[in-house]
Amino acid sequence: MRRGTNLPWVRDYNQGVVLEAIRLGGGVSRVEIASKTGLTAQTVSNIVRRLLTEGLVVEGERPFDGGQRRVPLSVNREARSAVGVQIDVDETSIVVLDLGGHVVLRRRCATDPEHRPLEVIRQVAEEVGAVLDEAGAERGNVLGVGVACPGPLDHRTGVVFRPPNLPGWDRVHLAEALSEWTGYPVIVDNDATAAAIGERWSGGARGARNFAFVYVGVGIGAGLFLEDHVFRGATTNAGEFGHITLDPEGPACHCGSRGCVEALCSPGRVVSAVERRIRAGEPSLLASRAEYGFAEVCRAALGGDALAGDEVRRAAYHLGCGAVSLVNLLDLELVVLGGKVLGTVAELYRREIERAVEERTMASGLRRVRVVLSQAGEDAAAVGAASLVMHTAFAPRQAGLERADLSQLTPVGPSV
Amino acid sequence: MRRGTNLPWVRDYNQGVVLEAIRLGGGVSRVEIASKTGLTAQTVSNIVRRLLTEGLVVEGERPFDGGQRRVPLSVNREARSAVGVQIDVDETSIVVLDLGGHVVLRRRCATDPEHRPLEVIRQVAEEVGAVLDEAGAERGNVLGVGVACPGPLDHRTGVVFRPPNLPGWDRVHLAEALSEWTGYPVIVDNDATAAAIGERWSGGARGARNFAFVYVGVGIGAGLFLEDHVFRGATTNAGEFGHITLDPEGPACHCGSRGCVEALCSPGRVVSAVERRIRAGEPSLLASRAEYGFAEVCRAALGGDALAGDEVRRAAYHLGCGAVSLVNLLDLELVVLGGKVLGTVAELYRREIERAVEERTMASGLRRVRVVLSQAGEDAAAVGAASLVMHTAFAPRQAGLERADLSQLTPVGPSV
Repeated sequence: MRRGTNLPWVRDYNQGVVLEAIRLGGGVSRVEIASKTGLTAQTVSNIVRRLLTEGLVVEGERPFDGGQRRVPLSVNREARSAVGVQIDVDETSIVVLDLGGHVVLRRRCATDPEHRPLEVIRQVAEEVGAVLDEAGAERGNVLGVGVACPGPLDHRTGVVFRPPNLPGWDRVHLAEALSEWTGYPVIVDNDATAAAIGERWSGGARGARNFAFVYVGVGIGAGLFLEDHVFRGATTNAGEFGHITLDPEGPACHCGSRGCVEALCSPGRVVSAVERRIRAGEPSLLASRAEYGFAEVCRAALGGDALAGDEVRRAAYHLGCGAVSLVNLLDLELVVLGGKVLGTVAELYRREIERAVEERTMASGLRRVRVVLSQAGEDAAAVGAASLVMHTAFAPRQAGLERADLSQLTPVGPSV
Repeated sequence: MRRGTNLPWVRDYNQGVVLEAIRLGGGVSRVEIASKTGLTAQTVSNIVRRLLTEGLVVEGERPFDGGQRRVPLSVNREARSAVGVQIDVDETSIVVLDLGGHVVLRRRCATDPEHRPLEVIRQVAEEVGAVLDEAGAERGNVLGVGVACPGPLDHRTGVVFRPPNLPGWDRVHLAEALSEWTGYPVIVDNDATAAAIGERWSGGARGARNFAFVYVGVGIGAGLFLEDHVFRGATTNAGEFGHITLDPEGPACHCGSRGCVEALCSPGRVVSAVERRIRAGEPSLLASRAEYGFAEVCRAALGGDALAGDEVRRAAYHLGCGAVSLVNLLDLELVVLGGKVLGTVAELYRREIERAVEERTMASGLRRVRVVLSQAGEDAAAVGAASLVMHTAFAPRQAGLERADLSQLTPVGPSV
């Protein structure tokens, strides 16, 4: 049954709207905020006063020809920070983000794939502490830790369920354990959804109401922002773009289906395809190498190796076909592409997706769907994980009384 | 830029929530509504008083052991009605729906595919008047006319853009023309989205927060209900499920792409495939017939004709593969199947989709995704079009000041 809403929700919602207007339109005034948000001057004025008191916003200089209502406002970047962690099978990335969406510090550390989940989480907890020390972050201003990892998982409880791309993790209570060991609230989301929130919070999707972040890591997923809200679906596992069927009779996928996007074009599959063709005797610059991964295949492709180029382009082509389904199904205005492993072929992938979207979607001819690279680059999921914390604390939520959760994201430090 | 919200919005939202609770839980009391919606007893009481004054709700008998707060409430079915129209290439269906979601009257009439759009709309306007007379509907209680037709179209303006499945309709101002000729407000939506709203309003998706209506008509589409709200996307053309790519190198689709769901399993493609194989000399009960359509192919398939059965099952199989993508991408709890042409093979299609969803989605093993047939049967889109009017007038809307549109759906008749 749908839940009702109430006045505190309206207050929080409008405060989120105003803070977003200030964040995205640096130097915006109360008058401009009222005009952009449709809120009355009085409402905007009250909310700004609250934000100033809480130290989240600062005033610039009063303009020569205007009163208080024309004073430029901007967020107080140092007022809050959030930690973002991306856990992958062999590496953990950690970033510290300020309230303005700027990365204060980033660090990567190798994780041993042989380690058990709790050992990995223990190591992450130590790294989080070290990174916060190094960043000189005021501990009382740290809202919490966001974690991005492969799904399936339950965003609401922070439990990770046997992700195919995180072997050995089976019903791991990630949020609970990491929260205990860091002392901060922890929120977990899948890597692609986190990346989408990051791009909306501080990247190239600011202001986009309907977009997808196509995330290429060990696996492939999509984070969905629909009608101005992150969309997670019935069990918070929406966005399994890697398991859209592209060829019902195609190669078996580890998910149990066949011909999924991931089975056709994950980085691992590209490498396997190159290996297979080299073993079959086809010529390639890579033939003389004992071992190579996706990065080497991409370099070979860009260096003119025909076989590597062929397989990279085929993967990009299939990714483009998947993007066509995504755009047709969700009527998106924007597709953002990013992820840890894309590296040197990011632009090649982007162009291929753009071409598919331009040539093959229902939208082609009627309107233009932008296809861009993530501004967060290879750290998209880690930046997204930190943004997830900011988003949970500050973004306007959908109505409904039950959803006012995660109120623990209120720092108790000196600035409050 | 995101828009703020205000107190009148909260009032409307909660009124929508309460009306929905009464509609879906016939005989529910104020106490039960408060418990189900999370609203306070006072808020529920105020809203119910307003609904009683407006005549939208009626009280049953006071129970022996309870006070006013335990009086059963139900919607006053006759208080409002809405007309639903489905326009297809060769036929128009019209229904009259009451506030309880019951079909008061239904009618079909042939439309000449040679007629120009404005002639068709003129004919529809006359039929709407005749149907309302026949239903004995109090004109002052008629909220408006909903129209479902193939997309692409602009739901916001009611303009239809060259739908591939409605030849000759090119930028037709459908809502404007029909409103002028009927005297009622008119809302236009694509057939699948309308069908989804209908199923949520009065069918088997009551209470479902995340579901899709897979609509099989001349074309194939999906209506999406995400997080309790109908989802229309950036240009109100979301749900082009028929143009998910199932085979990038497959048969050309009229949309400009290849191997789309629609290109592989629209009813017309099934008939073409049967014709092709019969011409190639394969045996079939249909070989002796000069002319046959999808209905005849389905009857032959159910009658044991191997060739027809083969093609019908292949179409259902591909539809199932598309549904797997849909469920994986959107993490749905429910898929509803329906549409005008499904007829006798509806259950066969349903089983095939259910099997694909059970065997091939990421959700399999973790949770159960239901696959059901539409309760509205072949009239799903027409019932949906009428529900669209009810939904627009009464359903809780997402927050945001700009979206309080279509306020013209307030009857000025005697009951108000």
